Amino acid sequence: MNKKIRLGILGGGGDSLIGVLHRVASSMFDRYEIIGGVFNPNYDENLSFAKKLGLKESRIYKDFETMVDQESKLNSDERIEVVSVLTPNFLHYPMAKKLLENNFHVICEKPLTTTYKEALDLKKIQSEKKLVFAVTYTYTGYPMVRQMTKMIADGVIGKLHKVDAQYLQGWLNPVIHEKEKRNSTWRLNPEKSGISCCVGDIGTHAFNMVELVTGMKVKSVLADLNTLYADNPMDVDANILIQFSTNMKGTIRSSQIATGEENNLRISVYGEKGGLKWEQENPNYLYHLKDDAPLQVLKSGHGYNNEISLDGTKLPPGHPEGIFDSMGNIYKGVARAIRQESFASEEFPSIEDGVRGMDFIEKTVESNSKGNVWVELNK
Amino acid sequence: MNKKIRLGILGGGGDSLIGVLHRVASSMFDRYEIIGGVFNPNYDENLSFAKKLGLKESRIYKDFETMVDQESKLNSDERIEVVSVLTPNFLHYPMAKKLLENNFHVICEKPLTTTYKEALDLKKIQSEKKLVFAVTYTYTGYPMVRQMTKMIADGVIGKLHKVDAQYLQGWLNPVIHEKEKRNSTWRLNPEKSGISCCVGDIGTHAFNMVELVTGMKVKSVLADLNTLYADNPMDVDANILIQFSTNMKGTIRSSQIATGEENNLRISVYGEKGGLKWEQENPNYLYHLKDDAPLQVLKSGHGYNNEISLDGTKLPPGHPEGIFDSMGNIYKGVARAIRQESFASEEFPSIEDGVRGMDFIEKTVESNSKGNVWVELNK
Amino acid sequence: MNKKIRLGILGGGGDSLIGVLHRVASSMFDRYEIIGGVFNPNYDENLSFAKKLGLKESRIYKDFETMVDQESKLNSDERIEVVSVLTPNFLHYPMAKKLLENNFHVICEKPLTTTYKEALDLKKIQSEKKLVFAVTYTYTGYPMVRQMTKMIADGVIGKLHKVDAQYLQGWLNPVIHEKEKRNSTWRLNPEKSGISCCVGDIGTHAFNMVELVTGMKVKSVLADLNTLYADNPMDVDANILIQFSTNMKGTIRSSQIATGEENNLRISVYGEKGGLKWEQENPNYLYHLKDDAPLQVLKSGHGYNNEISLDGTKLPPGHPEGIFDSMGNIYKGVARAIRQESFASEEFPSIEDGVRGMDFIEKTVESNSKGNVWVELNK
Amino acid sequence: MNKKIRLGILGGGGDSLIGVLHRVASSMFDRYEIIGGVFNPNYDENLSFAKKLGLKESRIYKDFETMVDQESKLNSDERIEVVSVLTPNFLHYPMAKKLLENNFHVICEKPLTTTYKEALDLKKIQSEKKLVFAVTYTYTGYPMVRQMTKMIADGVIGKLHKVDAQYLQGWLNPVIHEKEKRNSTWRLNPEKSGISCCVGDIGTHAFNMVELVTGMKVKSVLADLNTLYADNPMDVDANILIQFSTNMKGTIRSSQIATGEENNLRISVYGEKGGLKWEQENPNYLYHLKDDAPLQVLKSGHGYNNEISLDGTKLPPGHPEGIFDSMGNIYKGVARAIRQESFASEEFPSIEDGVRGMDFIEKTVESNSKGNVWVELNK
Repeated sequence: MNKKIRLGILGGGGDSLIGVLHRVASSMFDRYEIIGGVFNPNYDENLSFAKKLGLKESRIYKDFETMVDQESKLNSDERIEVVSVLTPNFLHYPMAKKLLENNFHVICEKPLTTTYKEALDLKKIQSEKKLVFAVTYTYTGYPMVRQMTKMIADGVIGKLHKVDAQYLQGWLNPVIHEKEKRNSTWRLNPEKSGISCCVGDIGTHAFNMVELVTGMKVKSVLADLNTLYADNPMDVDANILIQFSTNMKGTIRSSQIATGEENNLRISVYGEKGGLKWEQENPNYLYHLKDDAPLQVLKSGHGYNNEISLDGTKLPPGHPEGIFDSMGNIYKGVARAIRQESFASEEFPSIEDGVRGMDFIEKTVESNSKGNVWVELNK
Repeated sequence: MNKKIRLGILGGGGDSLIGVLHRVASSMFDRYEIIGGVFNPNYDENLSFAKKLGLKESRIYKDFETMVDQESKLNSDERIEVVSVLTPNFLHYPMAKKLLENNFHVICEKPLTTTYKEALDLKKIQSEKKLVFAVTYTYTGYPMVRQMTKMIADGVIGKLHKVDAQYLQGWLNPVIHEKEKRNSTWRLNPEKSGISCCVGDIGTHAFNMVELVTGMKVKSVLADLNTLYADNPMDVDANILIQFSTNMKGTIRSSQIATGEENNLRISVYGEKGGLKWEQENPNYLYHLKDDAPLQVLKSGHGYNNEISLDGTKLPPGHPEGIFDSMGNIYKGVARAIRQESFASEEFPSIEDGVRGMDFIEKTVESNSKGNVWVELNK
Repeated sequence: MNKKIRLGILGGGGDSLIGVLHRVASSMFDRYEIIGGVFNPNYDENLSFAKKLGLKESRIYKDFETMVDQESKLNSDERIEVVSVLTPNFLHYPMAKKLLENNFHVICEKPLTTTYKEALDLKKIQSEKKLVFAVTYTYTGYPMVRQMTKMIADGVIGKLHKVDAQYLQGWLNPVIHEKEKRNSTWRLNPEKSGISCCVGDIGTHAFNMVELVTGMKVKSVLADLNTLYADNPMDVDANILIQFSTNMKGTIRSSQIATGEENNLRISVYGEKGGLKWEQENPNYLYHLKDDAPLQVLKSGHGYNNEISLDGTKLPPGHPEGIFDSMGNIYKGVARAIRQESFASEEFPSIEDGVRGMDFIEKTVESNSKGNVWVELNK
Repeated sequence: MNKKIRLGILGGGGDSLIGVLHRVASSMFDRYEIIGGVFNPNYDENLSFAKKLGLKESRIYKDFETMVDQESKLNSDERIEVVSVLTPNFLHYPMAKKLLENNFHVICEKPLTTTYKEALDLKKIQSEKKLVFAVTYTYTGYPMVRQMTKMIADGVIGKLHKVDAQYLQGWLNPVIHEKEKRNSTWRLNPEKSGISCCVGDIGTHAFNMVELVTGMKVKSVLADLNTLYADNPMDVDANILIQFSTNMKGTIRSSQIATGEENNLRISVYGEKGGLKWEQENPNYLYHLKDDAPLQVLKSGHGYNNEISLDGTKLPPGHPEGIFDSMGNIYKGVARAIRQESFASEEFPSIEDGVRGMDFIEKTVESNSKGNVWVELNK
């Protein structure tokens, strides 16, 4: 059966950046049709926005509860099959929970929840319900991230002994140095943003990338966080040592005060037979280093790439694809899972990735508050 | 009125690369709805493909003539408003002509036609009908191409005196050296591909880029083409000198036998006050050179860019956008034109750009066949 | 007085890489003449090598003691004025000590000594004798390192809040994984190499660069070292958190098992007004980042650079200079100091830099052996 | 016999850039000793400068004729063996001629002479005398240029079919637009600078590089030169088509009005099996392209490079060497030739390279003045 998957959306209305990213991604492979949703808490704005998208008024709901309620009454060949949750972080948990309980597949923005406990709870329900659940760590959809992951899994660079990851931004620099500004930014308000700003928002992306590409679990973390000002309760910069169960070690460095940096996520992995490096801002290149051999630069779209990497490229080499295409690949993977087609686990981040992320955030903050000591992650 | 524009598509079915590019581009800003078309000459394949896209069977036509016929009978609020022509080159002219005559707006893949004469004819009809007509020189939609164009128009680098453009590919290298392969490739068959392979296919992109960003018209060309083998009738490599009406000079170099090159389109423009350089394979950067000043690297999405550049970026700096996004920007501009909203001429290439391209191809071939002499383009 | 400075050399004979580096550097600005030395412990080889350099036999000594003895008897306008110490690490201390005591200026390879205590002792003698003493942290002589240092001192990027430094090599990867190889490498033998391999050899370069360019002192370190194999007593990889007395924090990451890396020393510094980044492998570029402004790439040799940077460039912009030129700049600064001409302290690393380096090595090892805790450096 | 070669120098005194380049280069491998010369037409300045270099007063000559006269009277183990000619262009010919006639080896700056005829004359004398004669096309000494040359000679990229070379500078931009400035610049004065400015000064470097790395001779040129202003008699920009005797074609583009460019010499060569690209501003990298294979980046100093490339690197990979080191390699090759040791012809550019360069300049100017027609070079 090749009918399009009926997609519902929560949040992402108006000028929302995350909204356009998910909508374009969902349309890329002709697998989804946006059927209904609640794009905005204000009903008039919701209605006007959703109509522009071409939705029928009957499927534009006044709130989340109504949507679940009404959709659940529809026939199975009519009702929304999967819902993208793009609402503020604190709403992820209650919404995702109710969606699962009512048998909807879920695509959820990161962070999965606001606490590790909530994340575990969601995972429990998801595994009982056996529904598809994706957490949109967007950068994992890039073809060369997939290529890197597969090459490491295939042993191309041998047994790993070192990883070095960073995610550097500078956008808080114009905010942090003025008391009034920093005290009125929602990202620096624990009530709105959770226990961590920098680690929670971007460090967690780097952590996910580390575990994805290495195929290994981080065992413990030792973190030195910087709030920069005494009246700022939230980390804006983090230097984190990480250890795995073997002799493999590394760092995750994330910052929102690396002045002038844009979205500088990078990861380098070194093993007995070689090294691999990838940079988000130039995502179509993968650098392969070896002892005493020329540096090799792999580029997306070439026949020498793995099948899963090539599956994520739509045009021939030299036609740059970007972050919309990366998210599109995640949606494609989810579509396959929903339609019970064959797919690889690397095609989209799972709820387990979301759970690991929440554990990482909490343990990092714990390590820092205890005076920069090692704290073990849950297994 | 904000109803979506009803889009028809000719060609681009199955695994067509150009098909997915146009479809994704049309969906990016929620401005179009694909309503009908003929995606494939084989009706069964056409039907099956179009159904997957979610089209109603009644709008999936058995051929182009039927489509024009049937659509013309529909009410003005139902019928297709604009048609994307993605068929083989020799069909562009007859299809576009008939579409214009029947009052459809047209989005046409390049090259516009197979001869300059046909192109002029189309332009005549279009200007009489006052319909929107875009020629999809895809690379013009990149934000940093727009930025470059506007900076030059604003005089940032002063009066221009030099331009250097290249479009290097290597894909014909594995084909050209074996007689059997080169004699059976459609691109090297003049009957299918027109009078030029390399200049027609990619040199014309570089030419369009030159005229777009400089805002100036090329006055004459002197070309040295290479067919590499005597039994190959078509150019696979071109070195072209260009002159403008002032003292400004330059080159356009294009090749399909630059072994190992992918899609290496670059343009450098130098004037009295500075230089600007852009590279298609890293499209989100623009290099600004000045006498005795640090090199400046402008990046897409920043507030320091021009309005028209920023209009072409959907996410903040550091989130790479690519060729799908570039084509999406072209479709957005066309939507504005169709809906008679305000738009800048740089938002999409016009039929005049298509006409210039055809003239360039013919004059380049003429220069070469006459022994590498200067040939003037029409004004 | 502009007579050339009479230079003596200890070590660096035969194919020694460090030997050629120092000799070429000393010749670059016509300030030195190599007069005498002991290039090799084997007298015949010493003699034959030194003759090739054009030295008189009477100044080619059979050992260090003889050289000091004989030179000391010569007239002040004949005797060696400054001696470059290029011998194995454990000889730096006794040789430099005796040279100072006998009134020779000293240019000493890093590490200054094998212990912090020895380093302090040397510094005491040097300050009593008021002799010129340079420690050749070679990378500090690059024009763009000097530019970076001066820009930060001038407040161009404002108050600093973050530093990120790395020095990644891969050369031990082909050695470390075979028991026999790793047990027979002198670098991994504490008796020959001191208490640290990776931190001592290259981490200390990164540390020196951090203190040089920021103009600030590291207050404490927390280190996680990796020996990779239980039978290897020495660190081959180090992840080090650093803190300054203010809220400024950072990392120093150094490795000799970053497979395929060559000599990847990089430093990034971020402050309230901007960021600056420099990479040793592309030393003629300096990247200047600012909030919402184009990236600026400064290049060596341009008039917009500071005086001290320009003093280190011999040719116009676009003529790459390298590591020999960097060392040449250090020798030029030392020549000015010896001749009591005016010079800036940034022109060459001092004995204080050597002392700090030894403290850093010892505290880093201490932090690791105590279980990754913060250890304060001496003031 | 391993005594140092006795080197004389003509010109290059005071702050001369070319002077420091040759002096440092000559000292790099301990093969030369500067013995005498005429560094400056003003005898006092000459004397004072040469003394600073450490020369004996008896070998500091008042003029060129005296030097040849006096040196010729000295014993063969005392007299200067080779002379570096660093004087203004019009003096190259008479000086080199007289030096050859008096049995001195010669190292001559480019351009070899001011006319092709003079160049031929010099070549005749040199071949009769069988003396060593090098023309210092400095960029040919880079290790990765040597690597590229050897790889092509070894057939690594197969039969060649395309070459693309450029040498872009912008330094005349601040000069050319003001009548007074452009009329008073010696480079734009044909009496001082010869028949060509841009082609003569830098186009010729690109031409030499093309013939060196391809191992092929250019058969004919078609040039479009730009003087930009009617009252300027000299080219400041050149777009040149080139053809070889086979189907191989290409371009040489050189400019001194490419605003903001520094010393941007690049060459790309494409053949049946691959492509190779090199850039002077990042000279330690060589890019190797192949159909459907990852891009390979070769770096200087690695064991995978050819012997002749490795012979030109003094330190391990990752320690950047630059233009002084490149010139040093040329001097090393010349030393081997003078001492009749084994050497490869690629180690230094010969008088034949100088002759070809003069022919190229004259034919390029001829092509332009005849209206951009093909002109054949001499064989």
